[in-house]
Amino acid sequence: MQQRTVFFVSDRTGITAETLGHSLLTQFGDIPFKTVNLPFLDSQKKVEDAVQQINEVARRSTDRPIVFSTLVNHALRDIVASADAAFFDFFGVFIGPLEKELRTSSSPTIGRSHGLGDSTAYGVRMDAVNFAMSNDDGAITKNYPRADIIVLGVSRSGKTPTCLYLALQFGVYAANYPLTEEDLEKNRLPAAVAPFRDKLYGLTIDPDRLQKIRHERRPDSLYSSLRRCQFETRRAETLFNDEHIPYLSTTTLSVEEIATTLLANTGIERRSY
Amino acid sequence: MQQRTVFFVSDRTGITAETLGHSLLTQFGDIPFKTVNLPFLDSQKKVEDAVQQINEVARRSTDRPIVFSTLVNHALRDIVASADAAFFDFFGVFIGPLEKELRTSSSPTIGRSHGLGDSTAYGVRMDAVNFAMSNDDGAITKNYPRADIIVLGVSRSGKTPTCLYLALQFGVYAANYPLTEEDLEKNRLPAAVAPFRDKLYGLTIDPDRLQKIRHERRPDSLYSSLRRCQFETRRAETLFNDEHIPYLSTTTLSVEEIATTLLANTGIERRSY
Repeated sequence: MQQRTVFFVSDRTGITAETLGHSLLTQFGDIPFKTVNLPFLDSQKKVEDAVQQINEVARRSTDRPIVFSTLVNHALRDIVASADAAFFDFFGVFIGPLEKELRTSSSPTIGRSHGLGDSTAYGVRMDAVNFAMSNDDGAITKNYPRADIIVLGVSRSGKTPTCLYLALQFGVYAANYPLTEEDLEKNRLPAAVAPFRDKLYGLTIDPDRLQKIRHERRPDSLYSSLRRCQFETRRAETLFNDEHIPYLSTTTLSVEEIATTLLANTGIERRSY
Repeated sequence: MQQRTVFFVSDRTGITAETLGHSLLTQFGDIPFKTVNLPFLDSQKKVEDAVQQINEVARRSTDRPIVFSTLVNHALRDIVASADAAFFDFFGVFIGPLEKELRTSSSPTIGRSHGLGDSTAYGVRMDAVNFAMSNDDGAITKNYPRADIIVLGVSRSGKTPTCLYLALQFGVYAANYPLTEEDLEKNRLPAAVAPFRDKLYGLTIDPDRLQKIRHERRPDSLYSSLRRCQFETRRAETLFNDEHIPYLSTTTLSVEEIATTLLANTGIERRSY
């Protein structure tokens, strides 16, 4: 089947255009798409260059390219819409109906939906990232009073990326603590985390999946043996159940899904959008 | 002015609905919005609960709530659309026109635009996160041959969050190396990074902004003095210029913007969507 080229066009990072665009494209699983991100198109010159690039692809293809746009500026949007492509306006389409609903007109502002570039939001996220980095893997436990959440789990259950994502995306202060063989054998909460019961959240994972992940890290070790993975995950789940610690299986989830679920289930307030 | 409640409704994380929704709302700067994220609405029961919650807000407000939805499933979408709210369908609106453009019908798949939950994508991102963590701040330099990019900069110029974001969002292997006083005085690339010239990318920052960031970390220290910040950033920029290392000022940028710019400017291939 003929490949279709898809452009994501934006005046900022293009991440919104990409995420929505990809989720639309997955509905058409049979078609091979080639995607190109064109971010930071914030001047007439840049937009005209983009149009040239799109038209170039159009000339070489049987089917015209597809453009997904989150451009905010009307004038720039009109220039891109003039390219030889199917233009999908993720932004402008909703502005009219929103103005009607809100009974006011909009004042075009480049949509800084992520992080906002303002210094307070930036500071909070940086601080949260530093917190996640320095409170990773239980090395330091003295900062737990400041933590919003302390993630528990066996090695490679997804604790570190989850905490980093919570910090980067949501400005949440997330520490994590590994459940060691000793903790699991005693079936008791580690002393370092026991006083912070309300902040604890467990991660578990299917032992087969864990085995694969650990095997890539340390092939053919005791650490990556299926038996060991079964033992650790079974005991961790028993501990979570006995101690009434809420927990989640990460087996089929992406990092975003794990982090969003934790946020939704705990009601922790995010500090960043 | 009366506060408007805005719901982000999704069958997965709701991150796409939130980012596009927030960027639309910023066009209406005067109106105070209260936002509520309702993620993982993947069953009739959950969607009906959401409708109840939306209608509850509608009953208590002068103006009806606004719903931004990325729901994929038609039937679930229709239930939410029946709520007493202004319904904005970020997803469905584009499916019809896309089907027409692609001359084929879509097969509804829950749009896993992030990370995809599949094990290869997950593995790549985890591996990239581990890489960024263990190659942070120049402590270990032996893995530089595997790095896609090595970010250089003075302390607190934004290296660590940028590398973590590159790893989490794009599956890129990003290391970072701090420019020390000694490097800056010698005006020479640190020996550890010099052999990897093609992978180097510099970050700089406005000295006033740097001073504020450092002050929060170590108040009234030499480290956070304006004079020191001016010296370090001036010298870092001189080094980048003399050594022809591309660089970027992070002063007014969010982490997403820094990471996306690096990706766009270097042409590094992302491994994750």
